Amino acid sequence: MRIERAVNNPIISPLQVKPSTDDMVVLSAFNAAATETKEGILLLIRVAEAPKQTEREIRVPIAKNDNVIIKSFRRDDPLLIAGDPRGIVYADEIYLTSLSHFRVARSTDGFNFKIDDKPSIFPTEYYESYGIEDPRITKIGDTYYINYTAVSHFGVTVALITTKDFKHFKKHGVILPPENKNVAIFPEKIGGKYMMLHRPSTTGLGNQHIWVGSSPDMLHFGDHRPVFSKRPHSWDNVRVGAGAVPIKTSEGWLEIYHGVNSKLGYCLGAILLDLNEPWRVLARSKYPFLIPETEYERNGFYNNVVFTCGALTFYDNGRHVVNVYYGAADQHTCRADIFCDDILASLSTDDISEVMENTAEINIMG
Amino acid sequence: MRIERAVNNPIISPLQVKPSTDDMVVLSAFNAAATETKEGILLLIRVAEAPKQTEREIRVPIAKNDNVIIKSFRRDDPLLIAGDPRGIVYADEIYLTSLSHFRVARSTDGFNFKIDDKPSIFPTEYYESYGIEDPRITKIGDTYYINYTAVSHFGVTVALITTKDFKHFKKHGVILPPENKNVAIFPEKIGGKYMMLHRPSTTGLGNQHIWVGSSPDMLHFGDHRPVFSKRPHSWDNVRVGAGAVPIKTSEGWLEIYHGVNSKLGYCLGAILLDLNEPWRVLARSKYPFLIPETEYERNGFYNNVVFTCGALTFYDNGRHVVNVYYGAADQHTCRADIFCDDILASLSTDDISEVMENTAEINIMG
Repeated sequence: MRIERAVNNPIISPLQVKPSTDDMVVLSAFNAAATETKEGILLLIRVAEAPKQTEREIRVPIAKNDNVIIKSFRRDDPLLIAGDPRGIVYADEIYLTSLSHFRVARSTDGFNFKIDDKPSIFPTEYYESYGIEDPRITKIGDTYYINYTAVSHFGVTVALITTKDFKHFKKHGVILPPENKNVAIFPEKIGGKYMMLHRPSTTGLGNQHIWVGSSPDMLHFGDHRPVFSKRPHSWDNVRVGAGAVPIKTSEGWLEIYHGVNSKLGYCLGAILLDLNEPWRVLARSKYPFLIPETEYERNGFYNNVVFTCGALTFYDNGRHVVNVYYGAADQHTCRADIFCDDILASLSTDDISEVMENTAEINIMG
Repeated sequence: MRIERAVNNPIISPLQVKPSTDDMVVLSAFNAAATETKEGILLLIRVAEAPKQTEREIRVPIAKNDNVIIKSFRRDDPLLIAGDPRGIVYADEIYLTSLSHFRVARSTDGFNFKIDDKPSIFPTEYYESYGIEDPRITKIGDTYYINYTAVSHFGVTVALITTKDFKHFKKHGVILPPENKNVAIFPEKIGGKYMMLHRPSTTGLGNQHIWVGSSPDMLHFGDHRPVFSKRPHSWDNVRVGAGAVPIKTSEGWLEIYHGVNSKLGYCLGAILLDLNEPWRVLARSKYPFLIPETEYERNGFYNNVVFTCGALTFYDNGRHVVNVYYGAADQHTCRADIFCDDILASLSTDDISEVMENTAEINIMG
């Protein structure tokens, strides 16, 4: 299967992004949502910033109203546990080293983007105090629904914003309680309901299943059903999460998702879901179609990651092409193109057992 | 504060409950939901059963359709981790040692109950394969809404059943994704919405917060807001969870909840929530009003537990009395009575900081 990385990858670098204030340093510009507007292609980039550090102290950012508060911890404090680039622990409390917001970037060709000078959406609510992350945009009618991960000391939740113009944004609060992330909302109602894929994390039973939930109004979700999970001995054996907004094909909903493997890192593959009952898995990638291989995918803020929050499709000489926008090593924004029918042809019906019928398997050992 | 345990405690013993089949042994009859019907007081008891064990093997039950499948593990198998009375781990998979269903019990005096011979509600759905647990009943109009913990290898979820007569039951599926339990639905709409307290468990940030969620239709929930959490150095320092259906008082919603303390075990206390904005905490128990002290509370299937899923109230000579039905040591059903105004008078406005405004506190260390 041919997948073509953009020749100008990374198409967006954190060096191109102005910090939100002089006190902050932009670490990453990655995991962008993608959509189309009348003016062309729009990416909503996750911009991660950190306060300037000192030799003696680790400084972490917390959003409060429209400000950023800096907390400082002495590096030699015995209560401090540092090491993971993404977060620290102090006296049993977790803090993130960076604070993310969203920034609009626009393009007419999908390769060269003009990035807004200022944050488009900033963490302002109590449930966003540790930042807003990994947006996805689903356009239905004239409304863009932006779902994202809202992080605070209350947990990792899923929140919703709507906009019609990417100038005025309305925050709708927390739509899924903790711990949940990696939500992708289907681009049309199914059976009269809005539907989303979501990925709760649990302390034990059922960890790392992707579920589908449905809603009459996009604000309240229910009828949650498990869809698929990580697979032992596979490229997605550690963790899975929905990626881009599902793509409608004649064969089913094509969902590009990330799977994590302890050797390969974060990779991208796909799963095909029934058009009318999207909790039914029809086929799934036996192998990922995008693996961290290039320098910018292997080395960055967090190494060995390709991670998508948005893909756009268009027809080129009658073939359905998917432009996958993806974050590389939690630092840069990249693009790779792949034919939709190539993905579909690559999917396997083996090993798609991790669905409801799986409970039948249990009897074997009984 | 005076709290009176029923003189005939435990009011229901597992010895009084007929097993669902000859192959099963009733271990516990506990954590009952409580409501009133035209015929009197109705408890919906959680009945936990286990297969008969053998010397050589541990046998665990799994529900499938209307049957129970038994899985057997050799006690000397090195892949088996046993010890917790509630569950085992085999080859990284978790199994519960017992399977719970719900059984109706009726009474005219609230002390002496006639227990149905057969299960009223049995785990039949794929999301219930490890059992149904800890029901609460909220009556609104002529409908009884029964929320409960539905456990399967897909996780610990919250599901909903409705009934009008406790003979015909309708299952509505999973209303909150994993990991969540300890849901108490308010007995009337607030601000035009149904509302519930719920307690997600997370792997890190925000663990053990109780949230409020709202719904237009009791099936789809959103607008989740954190309400309160465990408190360090307090009787509820390990874990908290909503208990009985909130009781409406002139001062606010009175919620009897369980708090866990490593020395005391599972205790009961109360919290007072704003009538119109129930995510606002007005006052809270500085000390629990029910602590495991009696033989049947201290020794049982799981020691040192008092845990409520249902309380009924009535007026006695003008005083509002609360009949707390509670599970003792995860084995028996008990009752204790307490005056509502005594609970209210005992609540403290100290140390109710673990609400949204708490984020302001963070700055202190900055």
